[in-house]
Amino acid sequence: MSENTVFQLLGRRLRLAVIGGGPGSFIGAMHRQAARLDDRYELVAAALSSDPERSKSSGQSIGVPADRCYGDGTSLIEAEARRADGAEVVAIMTPNDSHFRFSMLALEHGMDVICDKPMTNTLQEAEALHAKVQSSGRVFCLTHNYTGYPMVRQAKAMVMEGLLGDIRLVQVEYVQSGRAKAGPGRKAWKEDPARGGPSLVMGDIGTHAHNLLRFITGLEVAEVAADVGSIVPDRVTHDYAGAMLRMSNGARGSFWVTQAAAGVENGLRIRVSGSLGSVEWHQEHPQVLHFKPLDAPAQVRTPNGQGTLPLAARASRIVAGHPEGFHEAFANLYTNAADTIAAQRSGNAPDPLNQFFPNATDGLQGIRFVAAAIRSSRHNGAWTTV
Amino acid sequence: MSENTVFQLLGRRLRLAVIGGGPGSFIGAMHRQAARLDDRYELVAAALSSDPERSKSSGQSIGVPADRCYGDGTSLIEAEARRADGAEVVAIMTPNDSHFRFSMLALEHGMDVICDKPMTNTLQEAEALHAKVQSSGRVFCLTHNYTGYPMVRQAKAMVMEGLLGDIRLVQVEYVQSGRAKAGPGRKAWKEDPARGGPSLVMGDIGTHAHNLLRFITGLEVAEVAADVGSIVPDRVTHDYAGAMLRMSNGARGSFWVTQAAAGVENGLRIRVSGSLGSVEWHQEHPQVLHFKPLDAPAQVRTPNGQGTLPLAARASRIVAGHPEGFHEAFANLYTNAADTIAAQRSGNAPDPLNQFFPNATDGLQGIRFVAAAIRSSRHNGAWTTV
Amino acid sequence: MSENTVFQLLGRRLRLAVIGGGPGSFIGAMHRQAARLDDRYELVAAALSSDPERSKSSGQSIGVPADRCYGDGTSLIEAEARRADGAEVVAIMTPNDSHFRFSMLALEHGMDVICDKPMTNTLQEAEALHAKVQSSGRVFCLTHNYTGYPMVRQAKAMVMEGLLGDIRLVQVEYVQSGRAKAGPGRKAWKEDPARGGPSLVMGDIGTHAHNLLRFITGLEVAEVAADVGSIVPDRVTHDYAGAMLRMSNGARGSFWVTQAAAGVENGLRIRVSGSLGSVEWHQEHPQVLHFKPLDAPAQVRTPNGQGTLPLAARASRIVAGHPEGFHEAFANLYTNAADTIAAQRSGNAPDPLNQFFPNATDGLQGIRFVAAAIRSSRHNGAWTTV
Amino acid sequence: MSENTVFQLLGRRLRLAVIGGGPGSFIGAMHRQAARLDDRYELVAAALSSDPERSKSSGQSIGVPADRCYGDGTSLIEAEARRADGAEVVAIMTPNDSHFRFSMLALEHGMDVICDKPMTNTLQEAEALHAKVQSSGRVFCLTHNYTGYPMVRQAKAMVMEGLLGDIRLVQVEYVQSGRAKAGPGRKAWKEDPARGGPSLVMGDIGTHAHNLLRFITGLEVAEVAADVGSIVPDRVTHDYAGAMLRMSNGARGSFWVTQAAAGVENGLRIRVSGSLGSVEWHQEHPQVLHFKPLDAPAQVRTPNGQGTLPLAARASRIVAGHPEGFHEAFANLYTNAADTIAAQRSGNAPDPLNQFFPNATDGLQGIRFVAAAIRSSRHNGAWTTV
Repeated sequence: MSENTVFQLLGRRLRLAVIGGGPGSFIGAMHRQAARLDDRYELVAAALSSDPERSKSSGQSIGVPADRCYGDGTSLIEAEARRADGAEVVAIMTPNDSHFRFSMLALEHGMDVICDKPMTNTLQEAEALHAKVQSSGRVFCLTHNYTGYPMVRQAKAMVMEGLLGDIRLVQVEYVQSGRAKAGPGRKAWKEDPARGGPSLVMGDIGTHAHNLLRFITGLEVAEVAADVGSIVPDRVTHDYAGAMLRMSNGARGSFWVTQAAAGVENGLRIRVSGSLGSVEWHQEHPQVLHFKPLDAPAQVRTPNGQGTLPLAARASRIVAGHPEGFHEAFANLYTNAADTIAAQRSGNAPDPLNQFFPNATDGLQGIRFVAAAIRSSRHNGAWTTV
Repeated sequence: MSENTVFQLLGRRLRLAVIGGGPGSFIGAMHRQAARLDDRYELVAAALSSDPERSKSSGQSIGVPADRCYGDGTSLIEAEARRADGAEVVAIMTPNDSHFRFSMLALEHGMDVICDKPMTNTLQEAEALHAKVQSSGRVFCLTHNYTGYPMVRQAKAMVMEGLLGDIRLVQVEYVQSGRAKAGPGRKAWKEDPARGGPSLVMGDIGTHAHNLLRFITGLEVAEVAADVGSIVPDRVTHDYAGAMLRMSNGARGSFWVTQAAAGVENGLRIRVSGSLGSVEWHQEHPQVLHFKPLDAPAQVRTPNGQGTLPLAARASRIVAGHPEGFHEAFANLYTNAADTIAAQRSGNAPDPLNQFFPNATDGLQGIRFVAAAIRSSRHNGAWTTV
Repeated sequence: MSENTVFQLLGRRLRLAVIGGGPGSFIGAMHRQAARLDDRYELVAAALSSDPERSKSSGQSIGVPADRCYGDGTSLIEAEARRADGAEVVAIMTPNDSHFRFSMLALEHGMDVICDKPMTNTLQEAEALHAKVQSSGRVFCLTHNYTGYPMVRQAKAMVMEGLLGDIRLVQVEYVQSGRAKAGPGRKAWKEDPARGGPSLVMGDIGTHAHNLLRFITGLEVAEVAADVGSIVPDRVTHDYAGAMLRMSNGARGSFWVTQAAAGVENGLRIRVSGSLGSVEWHQEHPQVLHFKPLDAPAQVRTPNGQGTLPLAARASRIVAGHPEGFHEAFANLYTNAADTIAAQRSGNAPDPLNQFFPNATDGLQGIRFVAAAIRSSRHNGAWTTV
Repeated sequence: MSENTVFQLLGRRLRLAVIGGGPGSFIGAMHRQAARLDDRYELVAAALSSDPERSKSSGQSIGVPADRCYGDGTSLIEAEARRADGAEVVAIMTPNDSHFRFSMLALEHGMDVICDKPMTNTLQEAEALHAKVQSSGRVFCLTHNYTGYPMVRQAKAMVMEGLLGDIRLVQVEYVQSGRAKAGPGRKAWKEDPARGGPSLVMGDIGTHAHNLLRFITGLEVAEVAADVGSIVPDRVTHDYAGAMLRMSNGARGSFWVTQAAAGVENGLRIRVSGSLGSVEWHQEHPQVLHFKPLDAPAQVRTPNGQGTLPLAARASRIVAGHPEGFHEAFANLYTNAADTIAAQRSGNAPDPLNQFFPNATDGLQGIRFVAAAIRSSRHNGAWTTV
């Protein structure tokens, strides 16, 4: 990460616009910090709010010139597309129901897109957006940020190198406490299925778990048997999903996500077993990858520690023993995308090690999985093709 | 555990006979060590082998008089029953298919029984044995040894005291490596369904996971949707089971067991979430119970540490900070059973805190669960009443 | 951290110049990432190398205009001071022997200073620089970055609130592997005492350990009895120091640092016990603060988790359960300094919660401690006043 | 551990007498459980109390015949020595000031001795007892029980095999909370230096830490610079000791023990670094040995896990992944001693793998270390030859 490839290729930073993530948004600040960390982007335009006055004041408070603070995403995209020095990359962190609309519009205007997950609320939209990305040739980066952790990438690289042998078993879980109390959560729009999507828990964290599983194993979920619902009394939106999985290679899987496990902070955890060994990773201690070979002592792998593979080394800015966290993982996606965009826009071949950020195919597979899990649950847990 | 209640009540140790667990058996040595630890039993008779010569030599090698080393369990029970100083308790650690036979015979001869799990191989046998125990009035202790750990008992006591509120969510898993390689395991009889039972993984460890879940929560599994099979190619016996659970109070559950996760040692782990908080326990670090209250910092509970409840205190012989392990947990069952037997045989009321060892009802519920999981799996994961 | 106080107070970012930290430098990239993360600074000038050509090319490669890439720190400071839009803050990350020189010069030119540790190589320099900072009224921030971790600040806040009672016992250690092999380390200048300082291990990591101890406890080391030397054969520079401490309030301490513990990554760890409880923190898992009250179950405190005190909340950008790491802790110092500088330069009162970054007094105390430890070691471990 | 060597060699168990450890004693129950676990001993005589009536009643309550319950240790030894079926091994767990007296008497009567630590209160006694053991040819086992843990033995075996290279650095600590509150502890005799020894903390736990260090490294402490005293106000007996160490091969060491760290349970921990790697062990999680090679990923070693060396395998009764604890470690000493005694008494060569229990030389070295640390502390921390 030490070389600024964008500077090398373009002689300048990429011009970035952000839509959404206004004052008080955790994820908005995170996106902007991630964009800054490796210095590949210059924030040139923003539509932080749909109220023109608030959009202007909040945009200026983070350093965006007043004339490039827009009252909505559509105006931003259209206006910036007309400027010679307009934004060339748009980052979208609005409520889920507008991801599709803004992404489509940005692609139509020749912009590259960084979009928060889930990609869309409906399968129809996901398919249309996926097709649009393919035809446009533009970069579409979906911020399944957990795939940016160095030890997640180490796990993927170890699977790719065959160190685990044939994958036979996967378990992924995402356990949180945020909705353990009755009543709505922090964000009102999430409780409205028209805006928050057909299954709140699946859109919020189920897609992360699913994507992490696919990322590390390189396998698809072929079939799912699911139980999706809520465990907190009198709640309409989903806060729980359990599922059994059959992977594309025949491996079996277990899937377990909830936002209502009282007192549990952010327990995203994955285990993958193959014929030669197993790996375990837990988001709350992201610098550790447990590797348990079949016939040798268990190992503790760390970023830039002994045995680090190139894909993981690329994802870390530190010397071994120094922790990195959520911001750095998030920034890895932004930086991978930036390096790819700069290569494309300068007519260079992108570095393959920069290609591991989640894209529109990942997004589409996530929406398919959510839809299949809901279908299965409605059919009393019947095995359902994804 | 410091007072020897058996001595106090009977003026002597209980006379114990063992059937099974001969040379080279891990579990046989474990049973006998567990029986010795708290000095409630005197080993007076043994049928370690079905070969009379080997039975005699191996019995003598562990200190049993030659004339009380028997060539089979039936002879042992019948002969000891005729002696005035005969064994009054029989511990059975034979292959699964003879648990029923020896337990029934011992009960018929007025003996108390300590039996390895699973209780039986078939549901019919389990129901018959359960009925026999009820009618006999004798003690039947099933060695689901993990329920003997102090922190498992602390978890149960916390649930009973309402510290977790209403239980909403459970997850239990038992992940091992022992059968990760293709081919049969250490014990040939286990690979024969007639002896090892209808589902090897479910009988071996699935019943442990199920029993642990019931023990801590005090709930029954009402319905199960399961996928039971094998993940190692060309294997006939089961080495994997995943399931979704609906508990008797409506709580949702996830269940995941395997003996083929390469490199994983003995990962029995449980998590229980209620409306007020969650607990987490992991067998490989049994002295730690994580308690995560909804509205207060997470706690680390330890045996005889601050906040230890009486049920847990009874299960520990140490001062806080000193580890206990598998033997002590196993011994807790033996000692609880001994104290109950001694009370019964001396006409005293048993101490309620000694009543938490697994019994025939637990055994029957385990066999019912195995049967239901297999049925569900055969019906493509349909939700099945246990 | 979500509000950009600098923008609010100044209507722009602070203009930052960097001296040192050229290509290949871990700490140089870290400083610049830390400066960027919270968007308080604009990098306007750099002297990355003492070779004018290399300085220019490397400066431009990170986005500094060619005319503000200087061939040495002195030129940078003098030239920037003459510009109306010149740098107002200088960050110094050169070899240790030039920290004094550049800091003094920057202060003389009215600049605020952010300086890598150790503050100086000699006690004489440290005292002179300390005096200069006091008389100048400028901000001097010394990047003892470990004090920026949220859970370190939580520990300090808990001590300040009296939750530990009277401090009685401290233990601090910093154990690394980087110099476990014979021969020089990565940086040649460190092996030269004239440049790397009188005790390499004490300057590199001993000052971190000492500062962490002072930060959390609010106590000074009054006396030290030390053994400073090297454990790798034929090494001239120090790679090991052990010491016993007597704190200013009479508490006892243990101090243990080495750069030659083969295979240990970055084991900075501290424990503090008071009359009411103990805390433990380990840099490799920085999101966890273990709090062990005297009379209640042990607790696990996390950033923005239950019980987070304001000083810790200020130091974290995430919701509970999401990891932050080295960059965020480092950035906390930059951001605290920026907010203080902006307040001063705009005539506002700085927020007290921003005042906890290490300053010249901390730097001076560190150099005093190093000097006392070396003196003690030369006098066969005699107790020596710091 | 599965073979009962004593039975094989003698055709019976060893006859054991216990002195001390009456009702309410934690360590008394522990000794007897340890003696029972592997079935090498038969408890035939006891002097649990110096009150004849209480001695009789408490002895009978644990199954000792009334006529072999003695009112004091001297009577026990003399009477048992006169019996043809008298005790041949005496286990001593009295207050420290009588260890010497009873051990000497037992040896004089040809008995083997198992004695609680510290061996004696004075150096003079330690030397006399050590000489007596040598001249008697009898077995003397000192229950430094922590050396019985399988992973401690694994660490020793790895050092012996050269896997750590040349030992350069050691750190050992023993941190407890038991005396964190002002006032005397649970046992009155410990607060009396004439009975509890010249330094309570050093006798109670300092000797454990010192012995653990010697056991794993095979090195002696050559010189010590110490600070021994108390950190709880108004306390006369010691509750704290810090020290720097110089080992017999030139390695440096750090030593830190206290019984007054509020809230810390039983933190005995050791780290050893050599030229090729480091090991770390923590008593509260005894099944884990962290091995950090210089040039390979860190490993987690477990009992009977991959890479277990014979000395460690001998010390474990379980299959990998099943915890053992304090009792099993304690029992390992009893069983090692028993197998050695049985070999000696039957004229056979003892198995070398059974010879690693602490003996009189270890006890003497411990008392020498305590004495040297106290001398050093009185001389203001001067380096003092042990």
